[in-house]
Amino acid sequence: MVTRKEVADLAGVSEATVSRVLNRVGPIREETKERVLSAAKELNYIPNAIARSFARRRSGNLGVVLPYVPKVHLFSTYYFSEILSGIGEAVREHGYDLLLLFRTPGAPADYTTWYQSQKVDACVILGASDLPEERKALQRLAAHRLPFCLVNQRFPDEEFNEVDADHASGSYEAVKHLIAGGCRRVAFLNGSPEYSNSRDRLTGYRQAVTEAGLDPDALLQLGGNYSRRSGEQAAQAVYRERERVDGVFAANDRMAVGLMQGLRALGLETGTDVAIAGCDDSDAARMTEPPLTSVHVPFYEMGRLAADRLLQVLDQGEPGAVFREQLATRLVIRESSILRSRE
Amino acid sequence: MVTRKEVADLAGVSEATVSRVLNRVGPIREETKERVLSAAKELNYIPNAIARSFARRRSGNLGVVLPYVPKVHLFSTYYFSEILSGIGEAVREHGYDLLLLFRTPGAPADYTTWYQSQKVDACVILGASDLPEERKALQRLAAHRLPFCLVNQRFPDEEFNEVDADHASGSYEAVKHLIAGGCRRVAFLNGSPEYSNSRDRLTGYRQAVTEAGLDPDALLQLGGNYSRRSGEQAAQAVYRERERVDGVFAANDRMAVGLMQGLRALGLETGTDVAIAGCDDSDAARMTEPPLTSVHVPFYEMGRLAADRLLQVLDQGEPGAVFREQLATRLVIRESSILRSRE
Repeated sequence: MVTRKEVADLAGVSEATVSRVLNRVGPIREETKERVLSAAKELNYIPNAIARSFARRRSGNLGVVLPYVPKVHLFSTYYFSEILSGIGEAVREHGYDLLLLFRTPGAPADYTTWYQSQKVDACVILGASDLPEERKALQRLAAHRLPFCLVNQRFPDEEFNEVDADHASGSYEAVKHLIAGGCRRVAFLNGSPEYSNSRDRLTGYRQAVTEAGLDPDALLQLGGNYSRRSGEQAAQAVYRERERVDGVFAANDRMAVGLMQGLRALGLETGTDVAIAGCDDSDAARMTEPPLTSVHVPFYEMGRLAADRLLQVLDQGEPGAVFREQLATRLVIRESSILRSRE
Repeated sequence: MVTRKEVADLAGVSEATVSRVLNRVGPIREETKERVLSAAKELNYIPNAIARSFARRRSGNLGVVLPYVPKVHLFSTYYFSEILSGIGEAVREHGYDLLLLFRTPGAPADYTTWYQSQKVDACVILGASDLPEERKALQRLAAHRLPFCLVNQRFPDEEFNEVDADHASGSYEAVKHLIAGGCRRVAFLNGSPEYSNSRDRLTGYRQAVTEAGLDPDALLQLGGNYSRRSGEQAAQAVYRERERVDGVFAANDRMAVGLMQGLRALGLETGTDVAIAGCDDSDAARMTEPPLTSVHVPFYEMGRLAADRLLQVLDQGEPGAVFREQLATRLVIRESSILRSRE
């Protein structure tokens, strides 16, 4: 553990000055302040006081960490916007405000500074993935017992607070439904593998296919990245393999919509030539023609629960046990997954 | 102007204590702090220092004020999510963070406290409407020269920073297009009148109708509230008056989608029985069947511009002149607005 003295030595100031800077007390020259902050950062110094008394409400802000992706209108994606709406609701009820913090996926991040600089009292972390730098940043938070919660991402071998959905069951139900409707060659269009929910969906898919006496490894499996465009591109592969494919399960609605549009451009109709089911049960699922069968995921409730649990921890004033919540999913059946005969 | 002495007298403390509380300097008893803060609030005291030196970056946060509406998943509405994405982009570039602040529409609000308590350095205000309490809260901010900017709402008789879109022209083009396609009885489904953009759309509608030699007051005009449901409800009235209506211009896509769905349930098809155009050019416009003709509004760019201008003001360190920006809209023609003959 790095001490205050080490920071003072590196910055060339007294220990008292280090405290004054970190506690924001009294007038301090900008230049001194910056020297102390950069020394503290370099040594990764966390004042004991913060770890001990994190629960003292300092900022009144709940942080929400979001991945920053250039050109993607993040809040316009159903997934983030619903989670954020749920968090917003909880934050309001608890009398907190909501601070949005952007981070570049996969890049080194030090979340602890947001707590140190009293910008936030706790964080909900969205869009985290299992990449080495991200995992390390989370481990650092946990080591300092700074309160945070992941939403829609699990790290089974870590002790992190998590609110997730049962994506494996949801996928299992969707693929079982496609098979029950007569599909024998259900392809799987998955998202990026660094997300636990992608892996969970693969588990559900394999289970349903195997139970039906089919060999998952003999079936077409495609990798998208959760964007509409990647679904549209997958249409090419589905078209080429059209003799081998009579149904597709897509890991989110955006990809399913892109796939439907791409197939239509190639002359294949959803619900006639190929049955399709998606995941998320987003607004879009009600607007496509035919309407899209989809796994309902309670993103709003997940965001709300994560924020609520964290703010309860803050109100109680002590860290408490690690919590892991998993909310149920359910299949919403519409027309896209049911094969009609060609007229 | 309320003085520091008046606050000190009301709180029963010295003037120095008032300063120490408001500047968050040194250890102060919780009870004293609360007395000072409630006295300052009661007297609506704004320290001169804040008005003078607002530009000194205090919090590093840009506030975004959002209307809170129970059960509405705010971030899932295209309008807010796009503006917020644009703000997020600008905030990132300037190295700021984004603090979301919720407010109950029409209720008394005192935005100045967010600046006083150093939660924010400036605010972008979304979803403001021309209701007396809201106007008063904005006037108070302007009087104290605290930096803020409205997006998609104009107060022509005030001196507020504003970033808006040219909704009058957009509506004019959409209605002109419906008439050029053969519609002679274009109904108008507008949103709530307390928004300047609702009034601007009415202006554009009336101009296009009048220019075509039609009498706007003889045409069907309906009032919705920008929700999908209110569009669905409007379908009843359109259906009853179907002999008098051959086209509908809706003030946003959500209402247009609801209207299309409501009409379909009543046996009327968009593009065959009635031509429809919406506003926003949201994702939904590309997903309906037939795809929806809509006025493109650059919400993302509006959010980005508002945040960028405000953060430039902060960087410069002085308030600067009031700015009023109006971005162009453009009509995106799809199939919903073109009447085909019944097959």
